[in-house]
Amino acid sequence: MYKRRFTKADGRALYLYGQRPIDDARLAGPETPGHNPAHLRWHPLLNTWVIYAAHRQDRTFLPPAERCPLCPGHEIPFPHFEVAVFENRFPALARMPAPPPPDIPIPARPGVGRAEVVVYTEAHQGSIASLTTAHRRLLVRVWVDRYRELFADEAVAYVMPFENRGEAVGVTLHHPHGQIYAYPFIPPVAATEADAFAERPVLLELLPRLRPYTIEETRAFVAFVPPFARFPYEVWIAPKRQHPGPWTFDEAELDEFADILGNVVRRYDALFAKPLPYVMALHAAPKGVERFHFHVEFYPPMRSQDKRKYLAGTELGAGTFVVDVLPETAAETLRKVL
Amino acid sequence: MYKRRFTKADGRALYLYGQRPIDDARLAGPETPGHNPAHLRWHPLLNTWVIYAAHRQDRTFLPPAERCPLCPGHEIPFPHFEVAVFENRFPALARMPAPPPPDIPIPARPGVGRAEVVVYTEAHQGSIASLTTAHRRLLVRVWVDRYRELFADEAVAYVMPFENRGEAVGVTLHHPHGQIYAYPFIPPVAATEADAFAERPVLLELLPRLRPYTIEETRAFVAFVPPFARFPYEVWIAPKRQHPGPWTFDEAELDEFADILGNVVRRYDALFAKPLPYVMALHAAPKGVERFHFHVEFYPPMRSQDKRKYLAGTELGAGTFVVDVLPETAAETLRKVL
Repeated sequence: MYKRRFTKADGRALYLYGQRPIDDARLAGPETPGHNPAHLRWHPLLNTWVIYAAHRQDRTFLPPAERCPLCPGHEIPFPHFEVAVFENRFPALARMPAPPPPDIPIPARPGVGRAEVVVYTEAHQGSIASLTTAHRRLLVRVWVDRYRELFADEAVAYVMPFENRGEAVGVTLHHPHGQIYAYPFIPPVAATEADAFAERPVLLELLPRLRPYTIEETRAFVAFVPPFARFPYEVWIAPKRQHPGPWTFDEAELDEFADILGNVVRRYDALFAKPLPYVMALHAAPKGVERFHFHVEFYPPMRSQDKRKYLAGTELGAGTFVVDVLPETAAETLRKVL
Repeated sequence: MYKRRFTKADGRALYLYGQRPIDDARLAGPETPGHNPAHLRWHPLLNTWVIYAAHRQDRTFLPPAERCPLCPGHEIPFPHFEVAVFENRFPALARMPAPPPPDIPIPARPGVGRAEVVVYTEAHQGSIASLTTAHRRLLVRVWVDRYRELFADEAVAYVMPFENRGEAVGVTLHHPHGQIYAYPFIPPVAATEADAFAERPVLLELLPRLRPYTIEETRAFVAFVPPFARFPYEVWIAPKRQHPGPWTFDEAELDEFADILGNVVRRYDALFAKPLPYVMALHAAPKGVERFHFHVEFYPPMRSQDKRKYLAGTELGAGTFVVDVLPETAAETLRKVL
């Protein structure tokens, strides 16, 4: 894998990753500067940080394809690229954020960290499923490189690559892309998972019993609907061995991981014969935590072809999910769909 | 307050509450039976129960007004009523649920508890804001009565009245109504809040410092945007004294609570000059917990008149919210809107 780092006019970092050497000349032209005023405030009842990024109200919202900022020549001033990563122009977390406003009656601090955009391909159309096998295998190696580089920042405690896909989950740009947040604290979900894995190897215990829930299996990985899914067509991908993150995968495992990831998205898109909206997140260990079982979680917000699942009273008010579709039914459907 | 209890043909309970005696004769006619197959499964990574209620896929979805099940004569077989409460026909939790299916590779148990529908008025149109003052004061007393009756069930550990309003939060019936879930466990949000209050009287400490966040204040209550709001126009209503739940309010406090509740919804509806969708939940103490500061939380899913806030990667994958509108700005807007 080849990698080159550039600095944008406003100081934001831009990385190009490729299977081939990256030697195109940078395009000339004006660049739009970013904003960094995000800050954190403490939620004293939920014991967690909330991120405030008021400038995000102005962010680019579903632009026409010819003004897509993720196509070559806008945020990425090169005529071609394979995978590009850059610091978000409207970051929730940033290297040099502004201090919080004065007089907040609770603990507050600057939103130090990173919010990166990962552009999967220069092509404006497509998805993880439509990338070539080699290109998808490049993408998972980009994630590994980002984990390594972001963990090296001493302010960073947790790194989460994720993808929001589809207008149903609020996507404002259609060009195939994901994001990476590097948090200066361990977020609640990661903390709860780390506590569970510290106590028991939960997934190692569960994996041999997942036959009716399995969608697809390779030598080293399983894709399954968890028997405790909170979304109707939730899918997890986990390695059979307990890896803290994809940074401990060997080359063959990285390839297999990319392949099964593509297949899950392919199944999703076959489910209702159109691209299924989803939130996908990589759940790796927080920095310095060893006993953790890396996995990917996909949450599609649909409970049928035309009906959404909404998070409402019980989910938001109590934190308890009510699910309409049994996991074993969802697994059978997703197993048979291809 | 007058109250009468009835039993529907399928065994479900129905309660009528009124300011006047309830002596109308019950209407004859067929009744549609309910379903009770909900069960719970343990999520071993998040350490919490998930509720499965697959029959809910079939629930009534935005029927035309003339077939509204919440108007007099359908679920509520009386020609008139003030406030009616009945056990949901598609319950997430029920008094006599079926056992979970066999062979689930994680802990599972029947979904014991209660899912009640609270019909605010016989009128098909309206909201908490449009009820008369006396009727809204009746409604808060109905909630108190439900807390008392549901807590008396030894299977119940937590009771949460809530309201989902608007299609943007998935409402399937427009008739003004809320719901009450009685859980056989303490849900994650309630548990986290109870831990916080056990340590410190968080809201008592915060309330004197909320001036820039206050929307409305009465003798005994404050409505405010919390300085750590996770939704752009989130509002909380809290009593100034630390009550574990509305069941310790005196008559004057119950009236004031109803009044400020109506005013908050009135402000919401003025904000974008149309009924604002929201999830409202009453956060009271779990059964047996004394050190808890009751409050109501409203989560509207909008970040502007025409833009939704979506819960996506960081909220669902990490549990960390990113907010676009500063709480002090939202508070000023909501303060000035009426």
